[in-house]
Amino acid sequence: MAKDSTSGRMKAVIKASPGPGLELATVDVPILGPGEILIRVAAASICGTDLHIYRWDPWSAEHIRPPLIIGHEVCGEVVEVGRDVTTVKEGDFVSVESHIICGKCVYCRTGRGHICPNTKIIGIDRNGAFAEYLAIPAENAWINPPDMPVEVAVLQENFGNAVHTAFAVDLRAKKVLITGCGPVGLMTILVAKAIGARAVYATDVVPYRLHLALKMGADLVVNADSQDVVEVIREATEGEGVDVLLEMSGAPKAIVQGFTLLKAGGEAALLGLSSGPIPFDMNEFVIFKGIHIYGIIGRRIWETWYQMRGLIRSGLDPSQVITHRFPLEEFEKAFETMASGQSGKIVLYPRGRTE
Amino acid sequence: MAKDSTSGRMKAVIKASPGPGLELATVDVPILGPGEILIRVAAASICGTDLHIYRWDPWSAEHIRPPLIIGHEVCGEVVEVGRDVTTVKEGDFVSVESHIICGKCVYCRTGRGHICPNTKIIGIDRNGAFAEYLAIPAENAWINPPDMPVEVAVLQENFGNAVHTAFAVDLRAKKVLITGCGPVGLMTILVAKAIGARAVYATDVVPYRLHLALKMGADLVVNADSQDVVEVIREATEGEGVDVLLEMSGAPKAIVQGFTLLKAGGEAALLGLSSGPIPFDMNEFVIFKGIHIYGIIGRRIWETWYQMRGLIRSGLDPSQVITHRFPLEEFEKAFETMASGQSGKIVLYPRGRTE
Amino acid sequence: MAKDSTSGRMKAVIKASPGPGLELATVDVPILGPGEILIRVAAASICGTDLHIYRWDPWSAEHIRPPLIIGHEVCGEVVEVGRDVTTVKEGDFVSVESHIICGKCVYCRTGRGHICPNTKIIGIDRNGAFAEYLAIPAENAWINPPDMPVEVAVLQENFGNAVHTAFAVDLRAKKVLITGCGPVGLMTILVAKAIGARAVYATDVVPYRLHLALKMGADLVVNADSQDVVEVIREATEGEGVDVLLEMSGAPKAIVQGFTLLKAGGEAALLGLSSGPIPFDMNEFVIFKGIHIYGIIGRRIWETWYQMRGLIRSGLDPSQVITHRFPLEEFEKAFETMASGQSGKIVLYPRGRTE
Amino acid sequence: MAKDSTSGRMKAVIKASPGPGLELATVDVPILGPGEILIRVAAASICGTDLHIYRWDPWSAEHIRPPLIIGHEVCGEVVEVGRDVTTVKEGDFVSVESHIICGKCVYCRTGRGHICPNTKIIGIDRNGAFAEYLAIPAENAWINPPDMPVEVAVLQENFGNAVHTAFAVDLRAKKVLITGCGPVGLMTILVAKAIGARAVYATDVVPYRLHLALKMGADLVVNADSQDVVEVIREATEGEGVDVLLEMSGAPKAIVQGFTLLKAGGEAALLGLSSGPIPFDMNEFVIFKGIHIYGIIGRRIWETWYQMRGLIRSGLDPSQVITHRFPLEEFEKAFETMASGQSGKIVLYPRGRTE
Repeated sequence: MAKDSTSGRMKAVIKASPGPGLELATVDVPILGPGEILIRVAAASICGTDLHIYRWDPWSAEHIRPPLIIGHEVCGEVVEVGRDVTTVKEGDFVSVESHIICGKCVYCRTGRGHICPNTKIIGIDRNGAFAEYLAIPAENAWINPPDMPVEVAVLQENFGNAVHTAFAVDLRAKKVLITGCGPVGLMTILVAKAIGARAVYATDVVPYRLHLALKMGADLVVNADSQDVVEVIREATEGEGVDVLLEMSGAPKAIVQGFTLLKAGGEAALLGLSSGPIPFDMNEFVIFKGIHIYGIIGRRIWETWYQMRGLIRSGLDPSQVITHRFPLEEFEKAFETMASGQSGKIVLYPRGRTE
Repeated sequence: MAKDSTSGRMKAVIKASPGPGLELATVDVPILGPGEILIRVAAASICGTDLHIYRWDPWSAEHIRPPLIIGHEVCGEVVEVGRDVTTVKEGDFVSVESHIICGKCVYCRTGRGHICPNTKIIGIDRNGAFAEYLAIPAENAWINPPDMPVEVAVLQENFGNAVHTAFAVDLRAKKVLITGCGPVGLMTILVAKAIGARAVYATDVVPYRLHLALKMGADLVVNADSQDVVEVIREATEGEGVDVLLEMSGAPKAIVQGFTLLKAGGEAALLGLSSGPIPFDMNEFVIFKGIHIYGIIGRRIWETWYQMRGLIRSGLDPSQVITHRFPLEEFEKAFETMASGQSGKIVLYPRGRTE
Repeated sequence: MAKDSTSGRMKAVIKASPGPGLELATVDVPILGPGEILIRVAAASICGTDLHIYRWDPWSAEHIRPPLIIGHEVCGEVVEVGRDVTTVKEGDFVSVESHIICGKCVYCRTGRGHICPNTKIIGIDRNGAFAEYLAIPAENAWINPPDMPVEVAVLQENFGNAVHTAFAVDLRAKKVLITGCGPVGLMTILVAKAIGARAVYATDVVPYRLHLALKMGADLVVNADSQDVVEVIREATEGEGVDVLLEMSGAPKAIVQGFTLLKAGGEAALLGLSSGPIPFDMNEFVIFKGIHIYGIIGRRIWETWYQMRGLIRSGLDPSQVITHRFPLEEFEKAFETMASGQSGKIVLYPRGRTE
Repeated sequence: MAKDSTSGRMKAVIKASPGPGLELATVDVPILGPGEILIRVAAASICGTDLHIYRWDPWSAEHIRPPLIIGHEVCGEVVEVGRDVTTVKEGDFVSVESHIICGKCVYCRTGRGHICPNTKIIGIDRNGAFAEYLAIPAENAWINPPDMPVEVAVLQENFGNAVHTAFAVDLRAKKVLITGCGPVGLMTILVAKAIGARAVYATDVVPYRLHLALKMGADLVVNADSQDVVEVIREATEGEGVDVLLEMSGAPKAIVQGFTLLKAGGEAALLGLSSGPIPFDMNEFVIFKGIHIYGIIGRRIWETWYQMRGLIRSGLDPSQVITHRFPLEEFEKAFETMASGQSGKIVLYPRGRTE
């Protein structure tokens, strides 16, 4: 075994029991099944879902069964492979598709595994990535070029949400509104600019994030708390509105603003999750304008990954959205920073930052 | 002039003044503009919108400026053409596209005139078809083969809604739910069966209409008042649900049932108008399942008309949905019948039924 | 083991050595690998490729390594499953996808296994179906309802070519030309009519097949040997030509006729293989008319199979194209019949016809 | 009249009689029809078609009826409008769609005017743009922002070919081969890079043009005369080949190279015209690989123009392909330069270069 630990023990951030908070623990390095691989985690980034679990919101209480190592955005080196593994080998530098799909249902058999109803998620349904080592099915590994920067590799799972959303519609030469400038929204700005959007308008309620949005290339940012989004963007578009809405916030207000601004014949791709049903005017927002709406979940497996590879090789650098880095041990500080809203993407390093 | 009236006067059903009701009046035969044509009305059918105007609901009070001849589903013979008309000639047997589009906006210039924001509608924004004669812009005439049955020709405007909706999605070999069995819903059943749907499930609250739905070829009909729609259709689909939702009712309950039954990866085309915003669960209904939604308005001009022509020539007969016929003078009885819900499509004949 | 043979030996039609002809032999029943299943063959049908192998044409000489059991269109009962098989069980009534794909290349990983460059074909690259028993990877089994007629089940591999081709374009309300009325062409007529084609025109050079084409529902058949195809179909379409070309013959003359008749904006799906490069006028046939062309190979795995299931359940019966049935032992007579051109589909029964 | 000429006469480059060559003449300023506008030409660029007419090749001999003012890529100020014109006014700065379409056929009525069979082309079927003034139907004017550079405005007709081709396929994150680096090929490189191609490979036989291709952003250029195109690009793509072929040359050799390099599942958009039928291997190039081919002609009217507007406003500058500028009087020098192959786009100025 190429593992650098003879002890068979490792550090991990776990939800030890139901309720708010997380803790640093020492646990066993995972034992591999025949089709699994062991990854020495180089870096792991924090997702909004991790924050929900940290806070133990109702969704977490329903879905999480402690004790559990959380975290699902990750890259690292393969240090051991199970008996039956043929597609990955020791030494490969991999990123991880966090959705473990069944491979047998109608969706998996027709190239639509991203909507497989039997999906299990790493860090939610089984132990995750905020640890020194991570075991996953070999099928969930995406082999990177050895020289890919760790901070690009770690982001791919999350970057894939941005690419999946932006590629679901036609952005070429179009005016695009992105509502919500969390890390996925920010990366979507990068993608939209890279694939030929005419103009990108971005909204959020946090000035820190709007500032990042400008840095990513947004042509105009609007603070939904202090400005009249509809008014400002209507003016910026000479009264026309936008051709495309990419909804990344889940905020009912943003959804209404987005559909209000959407031109007849427009397209909307929705990724952001709301906290429940919202009042929605199908007549005005969808039917009279002949709008098309696309629900977006996860990444197309593996189409989105190939698209990411192409974008990254063409020069797009998603790691621009990273604003903070912490050793794994300082996870509390990391979560607090994230909760403050004063951040882009935050990366945890279980064994120090190596580049 | 080939008109058979030397008097220059004609019968018409008009909204004489704001408020409920309609009346039969004698009015001037329309004078043609240089680009217009005069149609001797062979038949005109009643749309749900006409019933709204009859009842003078809030929408009507806002949009209708009496006095107005209403009615917009119509066919007849061209008896006079304006000075500049080159595309239609006296004697042509025409149906009418009721949407007068501007031809100059970005939508009209890119083959999407059905969402032209400058649309004027015959029988709503200008005098309509419940009369002996009707004047329309020549561009709005669709020339039929001379031997097309009047009861097919008169239905095309409305049939176009069904075709536009059904053709917006892929129904081939799919399980399809049609919510709402008014005339458009009924014609959509015909279309879905003709273009290869695996099974068509139809819902409504009126037994009379459900009976018609079966006659049109629905594989299963469900009474949304007395049966548990979700339960019944889940069972009929072995727990799977449906691949496609075609929403024709606008009823919030039907919309929820439809999206509940829609399988992951499914498509929904929405034509039915609700009375206002509805509570809608974007997470469960759209995002988690990766659903695509298409808002449908009017007919694609003229793509839908060519598609109708093809369907009709392949043997589909939309006139099967006609259940009642009245002379124009008996319009009151026609509207009462329609209001009762105990009808499919109702046709008015201003000069007697000629076939 | 549920096999009904204690001897471990079986009848099979084999290509014993390079050169024309086939022979009936007694060979060992296949031994299963851990991921394989053993099928007791209920019926197997003859493909054009089998005839090429029988005749030992240049393609066969290059691709076939005798001794080999040929045949790849097949259905039967699963009588044994390998150690690792979880998706199929003894007693299942299965049809067979003849293309064994690698599951690891970019195409397989993005829902496009039908163009996997590592494809191995049953009956070509490994032993096939003209035998009492057939071993295949479990992944290649498609489980049928137990009550599906054998003559429907056996045709699905081949029917899938028809469905893949017809579903690659939009046939709804369109005028469709099908060039080539072999079994796939004939089944494509069935599909085109089932999914709403306005009219289907079919060409071939064999009157027997044109007669079958009419029986399948073609609106007009044209003998390319004795009639002027372009002239006849132009007249039938009032000078317009056709909206869609489905090319099933590979005959250069048919390809030229098809593209000549194709209207501007038309779509062509090509399945028939030519014997080599052909002279082709890109300007007139593709560019000036803005034509779209789709190359079709195999079946989309498994999308096409789900589509077939839907079509069959909606009432389409592909077994109408079967014209001849023989016991396996009379394979010589079967191949002669097929070579004569006086046949539709021909089915071989290794253990007698059971229904 | 706002024309600056009281004489009613103007300079023009005309094909005076059948045969090679062109000449500078003084002719009458065009008289407007009621739906026409008069443009004071600011600049006009030379198309490959103009060179064919200059040389009087067989196509020209068949299509051109002298005397004729040629030229169809043009921009300028509107100085007079016909009686019935409502969409354009004096002073507007316009570019010109060179295809005059009928507006009445099935293609024009369904948003596909670019394949209207009744198309008349400015500078081919009626007097064109190499002159001080040009009369066109008002419908063919595209109104530019007043501050658009003349050298962007003049190129739009030709740029539209590039945009139409590049937008016909999905280039996002893809490896793209562009065969032919004339002005349209060069502008297509610009577009492909702007809309997210992963890599652009370009071929030509003229080093001058390959040098321009690099300047436009091509990642790799290959000289098809002196290098093995297939070998070089296979190596550059690690043996894979390309995802997309954009064929701009019409050269049979380039077409074969392009389809050889195209990956399974790839897309090819063809714009370049060959001199006649070419030998084409449908099996290897289209069917076995499941390739999609799109024939491209002209510009989508007006969809392509709106897309151009978006691209230009997002920062793309097509005028980078201009390498030479001449006063109209020096048209001979301009055509000689173009014939030499040592040029990108060449622009003629009938009244001096004003910026």
